[in-house]
Amino acid sequence: MQSAELKTKREKLIGQAELFYSKPVQLVRGEGAYLYDEQGRKYVDMYNNVPCVGHAHPHVVEAISTAFSTLNVHSRYLHNGILDFAERLLRLHHEGMEQAVFACSGTEASEVALMMARIASGGKGIICSDATYHGNSTEVAKMSASPVTDPMYRSIPFPQTYRPLADGVSESELCQLYLDRVQLAIDEFTRNNIPFAGMFVCSLFANEGLPNIPQGFMASATDMVHRAGGLMIADEVQAGYCRSGHWWGYEASGFAPDIVTMGKPMGNGMPLSAVVASQELVTRFRDKTGYFNTFASSPAQAAAGMAVLDVIEQEDLRNRAATTGDYLKERLTTLQARCNAMGDVRGCGLFLSIDWVSDRSTKAPDVAGAIDVANRLKDQGFLLSNAGALNNVVKIRPPLAFDRNHADDFLDAFCQVLDDIS
Amino acid sequence: MQSAELKTKREKLIGQAELFYSKPVQLVRGEGAYLYDEQGRKYVDMYNNVPCVGHAHPHVVEAISTAFSTLNVHSRYLHNGILDFAERLLRLHHEGMEQAVFACSGTEASEVALMMARIASGGKGIICSDATYHGNSTEVAKMSASPVTDPMYRSIPFPQTYRPLADGVSESELCQLYLDRVQLAIDEFTRNNIPFAGMFVCSLFANEGLPNIPQGFMASATDMVHRAGGLMIADEVQAGYCRSGHWWGYEASGFAPDIVTMGKPMGNGMPLSAVVASQELVTRFRDKTGYFNTFASSPAQAAAGMAVLDVIEQEDLRNRAATTGDYLKERLTTLQARCNAMGDVRGCGLFLSIDWVSDRSTKAPDVAGAIDVANRLKDQGFLLSNAGALNNVVKIRPPLAFDRNHADDFLDAFCQVLDDIS
Repeated sequence: MQSAELKTKREKLIGQAELFYSKPVQLVRGEGAYLYDEQGRKYVDMYNNVPCVGHAHPHVVEAISTAFSTLNVHSRYLHNGILDFAERLLRLHHEGMEQAVFACSGTEASEVALMMARIASGGKGIICSDATYHGNSTEVAKMSASPVTDPMYRSIPFPQTYRPLADGVSESELCQLYLDRVQLAIDEFTRNNIPFAGMFVCSLFANEGLPNIPQGFMASATDMVHRAGGLMIADEVQAGYCRSGHWWGYEASGFAPDIVTMGKPMGNGMPLSAVVASQELVTRFRDKTGYFNTFASSPAQAAAGMAVLDVIEQEDLRNRAATTGDYLKERLTTLQARCNAMGDVRGCGLFLSIDWVSDRSTKAPDVAGAIDVANRLKDQGFLLSNAGALNNVVKIRPPLAFDRNHADDFLDAFCQVLDDIS
Repeated sequence: MQSAELKTKREKLIGQAELFYSKPVQLVRGEGAYLYDEQGRKYVDMYNNVPCVGHAHPHVVEAISTAFSTLNVHSRYLHNGILDFAERLLRLHHEGMEQAVFACSGTEASEVALMMARIASGGKGIICSDATYHGNSTEVAKMSASPVTDPMYRSIPFPQTYRPLADGVSESELCQLYLDRVQLAIDEFTRNNIPFAGMFVCSLFANEGLPNIPQGFMASATDMVHRAGGLMIADEVQAGYCRSGHWWGYEASGFAPDIVTMGKPMGNGMPLSAVVASQELVTRFRDKTGYFNTFASSPAQAAAGMAVLDVIEQEDLRNRAATTGDYLKERLTTLQARCNAMGDVRGCGLFLSIDWVSDRSTKAPDVAGAIDVANRLKDQGFLLSNAGALNNVVKIRPPLAFDRNHADDFLDAFCQVLDDIS
C-alpha cells in the first residue's frame, strides 16, 4: 500500500498516534542494523534499542518460535525457563540484586518499582527529574508532568554541565548545587508530612538528553536518599543492556541503586520487563501486593530473554558498543569544529546525543534544526530522531548490531547533511 | 528438574509468587487443550483462556515466527499489520466502536480506559464492583481494594441472584435494588464534589464469580451512567473473545458499552491488549495524552492477533464454545442433585462456575471444599482453580480448543471426585 493511503487508513483506525518524520517511513522488513521500506529502500537503524541484538536475529527468532510451539503459560505453575533467566539476569548486576519480578513493559516495571519503594520505606514521596519519562500509566505519568504537580512527587533539575544550574562554578560546586536540590526536595516532603520513599531516575538521564553529570552526583545523591530513609531506583529501560558500553547505566554514572527497572531491549521485541532488588525488598513487595502479571514470567519471555543474553555474550556486543561508540563520539566531536549548530556531543557507548543550537555561545536550543537534521538523515537512509528536555537533541541509539562500518557510512551521510545545511 | 527442587530455586530467585495447587504442577509442553508435566503426565487445561485457540496452535506459532523473522518495530513508522488487525477487531464490535488503542496487558488496557473516560467526561469518579480485579497498577488496583477507599472510586455490590441484596423480592425488584446502588454511588460523587466519569465492570463479573445478573440490570445501569454524564466501560479481558459463546460478554449480559478493554486471549500468549471506543473518545484521549506504548501496535502483536481471529473463524470456535458450554453446564446442573456442596452452577459458553457451599440452604461458602476439589481434579488430570468474591467458586475457563470429548472426560473425573468426597 502507498504510504499516503496507509496514513489515511491509520488515522481512521487508530487516530492521531505519533509518527516519525515529516514524510513517515513505511517499514516492511528488518535485518541486523538495517530496516527496509516498501520500495526496498535500505535504512541504517540508529534509533531502535528494542531490537537490541539486531532486527530479526535468527537465534532470538528460533528461541521465540520454539517457546511458542512448546509451551507458553502463566507463572502459577512451575517452569524452569524464567528461573534460569532470572538467575542469569541477577548475576549481571551488583551483589545486592537478589530477586526479580517480571512484567511486560517499562511502564509496568516502573509501577512495580514505585510500589516496592513505597512499601519498603513506608513512605510516599518520590523525587524525579524535571524532564523525565518512566511510563504511561496514571501513577507513573505523574513524573512526566511539566511541571510535576502531584504532592507525592517532587522534581529536581536534572544534573548537567552544559546548561548548568549556575555559571562560573567548579564542577564540584555545581555537583553540590544539584545535591542541594535533592536535599531541598527531601526537606519539602518532610515539611508537608509526606514520608519520603526514594528517588527514581534514569541512570543516564536519557530523556533529559544524556547530560554530562557532574562527577560524583549520583553516588552522593544515593547516600543522601539513604540517609533520609529512601530507596534509589535506577531506570535502566534505556540505559541498560550494554547500551553505554557498560552492562548498566548505573556503572557508567557511578552508583549502586537499590531497585533497578529494565525493559525495552530485554526480549529483542518480545514484550518483557523486569525489576530486580534485594530479597528483602522483593519479599515485602510480594507479601503486600500478591503481584501477578498474566503474560509475565512466561516460558516465551524467558526464551526471548535468554536468547538475547546469548547473543550479547557470543557476539561480544558490550565491547563492540563501547568501541564503536567511542569512535563515533570522537568523530562527531571533531565535526563540531565544522558546524556551529553542534553545541555539545554527549553520551557513551551506542547512546550519543548532539545538542543542536542556533548559537554556540548562548546555547539557544534549535529544535527545528534538530528535526531538520533527523529528516535529512532519514532521506540519506539513516533513521534517528530528536529528543531531550528541550527537544533539540539529535538522539543516536542504534541496535547493538550497529558496527564500525555503519558508523562510517553514517558519518559520510552526516557530513553531507552538514554541507547541505551550511 | 524435580518439582521440589524447582520450587526452592523459584523462591530463591523470584520469591513467594503465587502457585496453584497444594502440590504445584511443573509444566513442560502444551498442545491444544492439553498440558504435560515433566513426567509426561497429560492434563486437560480447564483454566487458561490466554492460549485461547489451544496451546501451541501451529497457525499462531507460524504467524508469530514469521513476524519476528521479518520485522518487529514500534508504531512511529507506518506498517499495515496493526491497521488490518484494528479493522478486523472493530468489525467484531457494535457500530459505536470506531478506533483502537493497543497496549501489552489487561492492566495497561484498564489504564487507557480509565484515562479515556476521565478525559472525555471531564470527571474523575468511577463506579466499580465490590469484588473486582481490573489489573495491578497503582491506579487500577484501587478498584480491587477491599474495601475501596480512594475517594475517586465507589464500589457497588455486584449484581447477583444467588446471594441477593434482599431476599423475598422478585427479580425485577432485585434489579432495581442494585440499580439504586448505582444511583447512590453517583449521588455520593456529586455530594463530594467529584465529577462523575463512569462505571467500569467486567461484562460477566468474572472475578465476582460469574453471577446470574438480574435481567435488565446492565442496560439500565448503562442508561443511568449516561444520564449522569458518565461512560460505560466493559472489561472484556476475560469475558470477550467468544468465551461466553457470544463474541463479547456485553452481548451475553445485554448492554452496549462506550469503551471496551480486551486482553488475555487476543494473542494466544503474545502480550497484546486493546481498548476500542468511538472516534471522538479515542481522539480526545490521544490529543490529551500523546499515548505511546513501545511494544504495542507492533507487527508481532498484529500477526498474533490476526492468526487468533483466523483460527476462531476457521474452527468455528464461537459456536463450539456455546454448544460445549451448554452441554457441560447442563450436565453439571444435573449433578447438583447428587452433591449438596454444588450450591449453584452458573455461567455461559466455556465460562462456568460452581458455587461450592457447606450447606445448600444457608449457601455458606465452602472455600476449603472448592480448593480440595481443584486439587483432586488436578490429581485426576484436569487443571482448574477456585475463584470468586468469596473464593469458593470452582472456576471452569478452558481454552476454546476444549471440546465435547474433553467435557465428557472431565465429567467422568468430576463424578469420581464427587464419589471420593461424599
